[in-house]
Amino acid sequence: MAKNLTTRGEDYSKWYNELVVKADLAENSGVRGCMVIKPYGFAIWEKMQAELDRMFKETGHQNAYFPLFIPKSYFSKEASHVDGFAKECAVVTHYRLKNAEDGSGIVVDPDAKLEEELIVRPTSETIIWDTYRKWIQSYRDLPLLINQWANVVRWEMRTRLFLRTAEFLWQEGHTAHATEREAIAEAEQMMNVYAEFVENYMAVPVLKGTKTESERFAGALETYCIEALMQDGKALQAGTSHFLGQNFAKAFDVKFATKEGSQDYVWATSWGVSTRLMGALIMTHSDDNGLVLPPKLAPDQVVIVPIYKNEEQFNAVSEVAVDLMKSLRKEGIRVKFDNRDTHKPGWKFNEYELKGVPVRIAIGPKDVEKGTVELARRDTLSKEFVPVENVVGQVKGLMEDIQKNLYNKAIQHRRDNTRSVETYEEFKEIIKTKGGFVLAHWDGTPETEERIKNETKATIRCIPIEGEIASGNCMVTGNPSKRRVVFAKAY
Amino acid sequence: MAKNLTTRGEDYSKWYNELVVKADLAENSGVRGCMVIKPYGFAIWEKMQAELDRMFKETGHQNAYFPLFIPKSYFSKEASHVDGFAKECAVVTHYRLKNAEDGSGIVVDPDAKLEEELIVRPTSETIIWDTYRKWIQSYRDLPLLINQWANVVRWEMRTRLFLRTAEFLWQEGHTAHATEREAIAEAEQMMNVYAEFVENYMAVPVLKGTKTESERFAGALETYCIEALMQDGKALQAGTSHFLGQNFAKAFDVKFATKEGSQDYVWATSWGVSTRLMGALIMTHSDDNGLVLPPKLAPDQVVIVPIYKNEEQFNAVSEVAVDLMKSLRKEGIRVKFDNRDTHKPGWKFNEYELKGVPVRIAIGPKDVEKGTVELARRDTLSKEFVPVENVVGQVKGLMEDIQKNLYNKAIQHRRDNTRSVETYEEFKEIIKTKGGFVLAHWDGTPETEERIKNETKATIRCIPIEGEIASGNCMVTGNPSKRRVVFAKAY
Ligand SMILES: [Zn+2]
Ligand SMILES: [Zn+2]
Repeated sequence: MAKNLTTRGEDYSKWYNELVVKADLAENSGVRGCMVIKPYGFAIWEKMQAELDRMFKETGHQNAYFPLFIPKSYFSKEASHVDGFAKECAVVTHYRLKNAEDGSGIVVDPDAKLEEELIVRPTSETIIWDTYRKWIQSYRDLPLLINQWANVVRWEMRTRLFLRTAEFLWQEGHTAHATEREAIAEAEQMMNVYAEFVENYMAVPVLKGTKTESERFAGALETYCIEALMQDGKALQAGTSHFLGQNFAKAFDVKFATKEGSQDYVWATSWGVSTRLMGALIMTHSDDNGLVLPPKLAPDQVVIVPIYKNEEQFNAVSEVAVDLMKSLRKEGIRVKFDNRDTHKPGWKFNEYELKGVPVRIAIGPKDVEKGTVELARRDTLSKEFVPVENVVGQVKGLMEDIQKNLYNKAIQHRRDNTRSVETYEEFKEIIKTKGGFVLAHWDGTPETEERIKNETKATIRCIPIEGEIASGNCMVTGNPSKRRVVFAKAY
Repeated sequence: MAKNLTTRGEDYSKWYNELVVKADLAENSGVRGCMVIKPYGFAIWEKMQAELDRMFKETGHQNAYFPLFIPKSYFSKEASHVDGFAKECAVVTHYRLKNAEDGSGIVVDPDAKLEEELIVRPTSETIIWDTYRKWIQSYRDLPLLINQWANVVRWEMRTRLFLRTAEFLWQEGHTAHATEREAIAEAEQMMNVYAEFVENYMAVPVLKGTKTESERFAGALETYCIEALMQDGKALQAGTSHFLGQNFAKAFDVKFATKEGSQDYVWATSWGVSTRLMGALIMTHSDDNGLVLPPKLAPDQVVIVPIYKNEEQFNAVSEVAVDLMKSLRKEGIRVKFDNRDTHKPGWKFNEYELKGVPVRIAIGPKDVEKGTVELARRDTLSKEFVPVENVVGQVKGLMEDIQKNLYNKAIQHRRDNTRSVETYEEFKEIIKTKGGFVLAHWDGTPETEERIKNETKATIRCIPIEGEIASGNCMVTGNPSKRRVVFAKAY
């Protein structure tokens, strides 16, 4: 398989689009804006889901499932929410097709018009809070800690595989609490869970922070987020967690009897990550040869490729390969032995490099004689010959080394591309020529934020939670600023 | 918690509806025909999913994800498919809402009308085969063995929780093969996988068979199915697997280069089970006290309820309970220790009976003194005192005993309610008064099948694959019949 992959230097955006398709991760479908997630891409997503699901359950959450459709009127109940979400969405207006009377095919049956249109969920706060009203009567019913794995639809004009698609897969947590403090703690906890997952499993370093008012989720009082930096210097929001106050409880009349016997509105959070994480994973680690996967999320951690010219050689090589596969599997390592005779070794090397398998083992007749194998790392592209008896130990070590190396490379990249600026001139220059995260003072007003966005396309990615806090003056207006915030152009 | 559950004898249908809601499995939502699957119900579904997913992967299948929406025109490509599915479905006609000019709220934006309407998938053959055209060029690309976990929508006028809902969750397998024989073997294999799952995990015995032509899936040449018998004598189709011939390959022009170098259309199967299985599980085992769950699918296999009057007693009881919980968990048993002080033991007993937890352990101060606990089985409602040191061993045994007992009870019920008849009079009488599976000779014509259906509401559930084969004469027309087929009224 010839790769013919555009390089990152030539055109980063094109490189990404090609890589997603060539590495068999996803492709566009016949439905505008909707993608097909191919088996290899889906296998990575399943690994991500499994870890996240475990982390959600360990923090006390349960899964449930709510309807795909939301009556139009539900959106009107929370004022800011309707502006944020009800606009660009798929609207179901009819429930039947029929054969056209002129025989021209099937048409929508005008007699089957819905009394009230249904919206394909862009997010489920409204339908879920309409349900919570029935579930919550007393403080004994709280906290209610629920997550849903689901597909959602947001009509997008310009789409990109994984990064922005009309339909995408995600999880959305929706929790209800007796107190404001508890809800805020939950929203913060979930931001931390996301950060832990993205850093430890995806090997992608993130900044934790809060969004400015204008970047907040529609209906939230505070939006916590984690922001990652891609290789091209653009930021990618990897997950958000929202403190919703009592907005949805009030909109859907969800009250509870407190321990003291009074009635109070419930406090809410919601939080989500989506298949967009796949985009972050791909863009953070991959190179001009293709995908690079961290071992913890790689569907195959090791691939064994046999090299042979005749059946005798194949049998000798296979014996070593199968033994090795068994020993590695015993250690919990995911191994594939690609013994297909329909493809040559060179084709396979290329294929697994493109697909980002962390470790490749090649075994030929000479290796069998010498009792060695060739071990290749995908992340560094280095190769070495290793005695068969050392392979299991070395591969185990590599699983950790590669995972760490990817994280370290990414954090080094972020360090090299995070800059503090004092003046707006300097800011504009860096955003234009270098990109990356730019730390700058901002006066806290939406007007200044808007101006910067219009003039530079950079947005405030977050008000960081960690790091030093020093006051200063807004780079644009000179007005006082409590601390630097993080700017970047973003996906 | 008072149960106030209608009994099966009073009104089986009402009993079911109440049980689903009271046992916290599911409830109706604000969207007509769409259900909310509550955390407890979803936890059972997750266990089912996990086992099925493992079985699919062990038989070589991979998961992928295809779009929720299907362009209307795709349905017209396979003639029989459009009649079967494109009629009662949710149709997306617009992609935007806007504020009404008269300020009356939000309305559909007439300017955002789609050029071609999108159908919310009722099943995904069309969109998947449109994709397979791009994936399949050569025999090397076959077989293609893919499964999707997804939500689907079929507009239903009369809905019932789990059994028939407008939106439901399911998995749909879609495979492509080089030969007819291989595709038929796949369809049969998946029927067997379903039967194995339903019998071994759900403890629900099933008949395997094929559907008559008029009961086949729209577009299939053969539909394999598994049929279960509910306590009220009605049948429930638990899963279907379809041999689709080359119908979809021809409709979507999916050809491959054979080993010999010629071009041929690909052979297809599809197969699915849905949240309907939850209905089968509930209706097969549960009783007038509530849900009864087989241990293999119970989210909590054992619940420990402490009995105490003061803190000192609580502490003593808790110590025993926590030790027991740890020992049981070490054996891989799912245990919950309900130490909430907000509810009384009697309330808890009732609650876990209603929720079908297989084993309940109660521990009071006297038990602590004597070194015993009270062990209660949900399936038989029997109780006994057991020395603490024997509990783990006994519970392990009970997990197997209860699983087997439920299956045996169900198969005994089916045996008692499966009858062979010779005459149509006898048939009508049994269908009317007793229900159950009725084995009878049928002349093989759709006309006779239709007449029987109209006159008795019984349908042919399947032409069984197993069991004795003896020829005879159709009970209605007297024409020759190769073998008895299975009739029943069905869900
Ligand atoms: Zn941020
Ligand atoms: Zn059948």
